[in-house]
Amino acid sequence: MGHAAMRSANMSLLLRVLRSRGGSSRAALAQETGLSKAAVTTLVGELAERGLVQEGRVERRGTVGRPGTEVRLDGRRVAGVGVELNVDYLAVCLRDLAGEVRFTSSIPMPSQAGPGPDGARSHPPALVIDRAARQVQEALDVAAAESLWIAGITVAPPGPIDYAASTVRFASTLGWEAVPLGEELARRLGPDHPELALENDAKLSALAEAPRLAQRGIEDLVYLTGDNGVGAGIIAEGRLIRGWSGFSGEVGHIGVEPGGEPCRCGRRGCWETLVGLDRVLAVLDPQDPALSALVPMQERLARLRTLLEEGDPRLLQRFSALAEDLVRGAGVLMDVLNPRALVLGGYFGYFADVLVGPVQAALDARLLADGGRVEVSGSSHGLFAAAVGGAAVAVERVLENPMLAPTVPR
Amino acid sequence: MGHAAMRSANMSLLLRVLRSRGGSSRAALAQETGLSKAAVTTLVGELAERGLVQEGRVERRGTVGRPGTEVRLDGRRVAGVGVELNVDYLAVCLRDLAGEVRFTSSIPMPSQAGPGPDGARSHPPALVIDRAARQVQEALDVAAAESLWIAGITVAPPGPIDYAASTVRFASTLGWEAVPLGEELARRLGPDHPELALENDAKLSALAEAPRLAQRGIEDLVYLTGDNGVGAGIIAEGRLIRGWSGFSGEVGHIGVEPGGEPCRCGRRGCWETLVGLDRVLAVLDPQDPALSALVPMQERLARLRTLLEEGDPRLLQRFSALAEDLVRGAGVLMDVLNPRALVLGGYFGYFADVLVGPVQAALDARLLADGGRVEVSGSSHGLFAAAVGGAAVAVERVLENPMLAPTVPR
Repeated sequence: MGHAAMRSANMSLLLRVLRSRGGSSRAALAQETGLSKAAVTTLVGELAERGLVQEGRVERRGTVGRPGTEVRLDGRRVAGVGVELNVDYLAVCLRDLAGEVRFTSSIPMPSQAGPGPDGARSHPPALVIDRAARQVQEALDVAAAESLWIAGITVAPPGPIDYAASTVRFASTLGWEAVPLGEELARRLGPDHPELALENDAKLSALAEAPRLAQRGIEDLVYLTGDNGVGAGIIAEGRLIRGWSGFSGEVGHIGVEPGGEPCRCGRRGCWETLVGLDRVLAVLDPQDPALSALVPMQERLARLRTLLEEGDPRLLQRFSALAEDLVRGAGVLMDVLNPRALVLGGYFGYFADVLVGPVQAALDARLLADGGRVEVSGSSHGLFAAAVGGAAVAVERVLENPMLAPTVPR
Repeated sequence: MGHAAMRSANMSLLLRVLRSRGGSSRAALAQETGLSKAAVTTLVGELAERGLVQEGRVERRGTVGRPGTEVRLDGRRVAGVGVELNVDYLAVCLRDLAGEVRFTSSIPMPSQAGPGPDGARSHPPALVIDRAARQVQEALDVAAAESLWIAGITVAPPGPIDYAASTVRFASTLGWEAVPLGEELARRLGPDHPELALENDAKLSALAEAPRLAQRGIEDLVYLTGDNGVGAGIIAEGRLIRGWSGFSGEVGHIGVEPGGEPCRCGRRGCWETLVGLDRVLAVLDPQDPALSALVPMQERLARLRTLLEEGDPRLLQRFSALAEDLVRGAGVLMDVLNPRALVLGGYFGYFADVLVGPVQAALDARLLADGGRVEVSGSSHGLFAAAVGGAAVAVERVLENPMLAPTVPR
C-alpha cells in the first residue's frame, strides 16, 4: 500500500470510529485505532481541512482537570444524491453524511400520449432522462447554495442493470430496452458532474433501512418493494447480497400459481400478478382518479386509503387477499434466506398498518421450527426509500476515501 | 490484541499464504505479508515444531547462485473428521489439511423393527448415536495410527440445528425431536475428544464444493442436496449464508403446487413432495431391492441406474418429470439469489449425467435477461459430500489458530 493510500485508509478508519462513537478525544482515537497520537493529530487536521470533522471544547462536569478537546464527525458539509426512476414517479433526494435529508422532490413519471387511437401513454427514454436531469440539477443547485460538496449520485432505474455498461437492460413497465441511462444522464449534467452510478431500487431501499435495524442488532433482512412489480433487497450478516451479475432479489416472477394469470414477462402465475399494485387498482371504477398515471403516486395511494377507510367492500376484500398472496412469496424468501426482519416497502409500506399484522401472523403460523421467526415491519423511508438509499450509498464514498473531499476554503 | 493472539494471527496469515501459493522462500513470505524477515523465521520455526510446515532445498534450474530454502505447508499431519447422519446412511470422513481423504466409511442408517403389526422400522436416537460414535472412533483410531492430530469433528444431522444448545430441533424423516446430539456424541467419545460442532448437511456440502468453483473464479453458488428431503447450501461472494438462526436453505417446503400432494410437514405441494427420492422409488414394484432401507444407499441407487439404463419406462418418465420439477424450485432460487453455479448433490448428483442437461436447458429458457445465466453441474464429492465438507470445516480451525496444534515430539 502506498503512502497516500495508507493515509486515506487511516482517515477512513478515524471517520468510521467517530461515526459509531460520536465525539472522541485524540487520545481515545489513538487507543481505539492503534495509531500513534502524533498520527491521529495529523490526520484529524487533514480531515478538518476537508470539512469532515469539527473540534470543540468539552466541559466535563464532575471531573477534575483541564477541559478536553473533542473531535466530532461533521456530517453537514458533504452529501449524496439519490434518484429513483419508477414507473409511477421520479424522485430525488439530497442527504448529508449526518443522515439528514436536505432536499427532496418527486413528480409523476413523465409520459406522452401515444400515436395510436387508444392513446396509450408512453415514456420515451429521452423525455424521462431530460426530466430526471432537471431534478438532479435542482438538488445540485440546493447543495451549491448550502456549500455542500456532493460525493456522488446513485440512480435507481425501473429494471435490471448492466453494471459494466451503466445501462438499463430492460424495463418492461416503461417499454425500455438497452437504455444507456448512466451515459445519457451524465451528458445532460455536464462535464463537472459528481461520480454517477446505477443501482437496483430494492437493493438501495434495503441499504436505506439497514441502519435502523442494525441499531437493534439485526443484520439479516429482506426488503420488499411493491408497485406494479415486486423486488427484494437482501442483506445477510450486514452485507448486501447482489448475486453474481447483480440480479438477486428478482422475485416478482417467482411462480406461485401454476397456470395462473398471464404476466408481462410471458409466463403465468408470477407473484407480481397477484400482489402488484395493478391488481389492487383493477377493482376500482374505470374513472377513479386513483387510476390516473398523471396524478402523483402519493395522492393515488391516499385515495385508496380513503376508500379503504370508508369500508369499500372491493378494497377490503382485495387487501385481505393481498396479505395472503404476499405470504405466498414471502414464505419462500423466509425458507431460502432465514432473515430476521422483513420490511414492507413501496405501496406495501404505505399500507403497512393494514398489511403487517396479517402477514406477520401468517408467517408465524407456517414456521416449521421455533427460533426462525421473522419480524415484519413497514419501511421507515416511505415511498421514496430507493432515493434515500441512493443518496446514502453515494455519500458513503467519502467514508471509503476521505481524500475525495476537497479542502474547504478558509 | 495480546502478544499470543498476535503471534497466532501472524502464523495463520503465513499458513494461508502458503496454502494459496504453494512453497515460498522466507524472503518472499516477508514481502507478501509485511512481516519482518526475523519474525517470519521465528514463526516458521514454530509452525514447523507443530508439524504444519516443512522446509526443503529447492534446485532452481537455469538460475545462478546458491539454492534457496523453500517453506511448504505440511497438510499431512493434521486432519478433521466429518460425520453425516442421513435418513438413509451414516457416513464418516477423515480428511487432512492437504485435502486428501485418509479414511471414509458409510453404513445404512441403523434402525429397529417397530412393535406394531406393520413392523415399521424406527431410528431411536440412542441406537443411531451409539453407531455414529463407533464410526467416529474408527476414524480417530486411524488418525492415531497415522500420527494425525485431529483439529475437530463436524456432525451433520438430518434436521434443523439449535446451534447454541448443540441439539437437533427435529428430524421428521427419523421421527426425532429435540435430540441433544452434540452432548450425547461427546459423552460416548470420552473426555479427550476433539472439539465437536453441528452443522447443516447442505451448508457443509456447499463448503466442500466451493474450492473447485473458486478455482474458476466462481464465488456465488447454490448447492442442492437431494434425498427424501431437499436442502440448499448458499454461498454468496465466497461466504456461507447461514440465515440469522441458521435456517437458510430450508427449501424443501417451498410451495410449488398449491393444493398438491400432502407433505410430511403438514402443508401441501411442497417442492420435496415432487423431487424427493421417495417419489422416484414409488414407481418401483413393492418388492424391488432398491426400496429396502437395509440396503446401502449406493447399491439402491446403482439398482435404479441399472433399471434406467435398461429403459424401464416408469423410471424414464419419472426422471423426465424430475428434471422439470427440479426447475420449478431451482428457478425460484435463481430469481432470489442469482448464483453463478448450481450444484446438484445427493441423489440428484448421482444422476447428474441424466439431470444436468435438461435442468440447464430449462433454466436457460426461463432467463428474463442475458447476463444472469447459471452453470449447472453435479457434485464432485458424491453422496457423502456433507461428511467431506464437515471434515474440511473441522480442519480449518487449525488455519484460524495454528497454536491449537500440539508440538510434534522429535
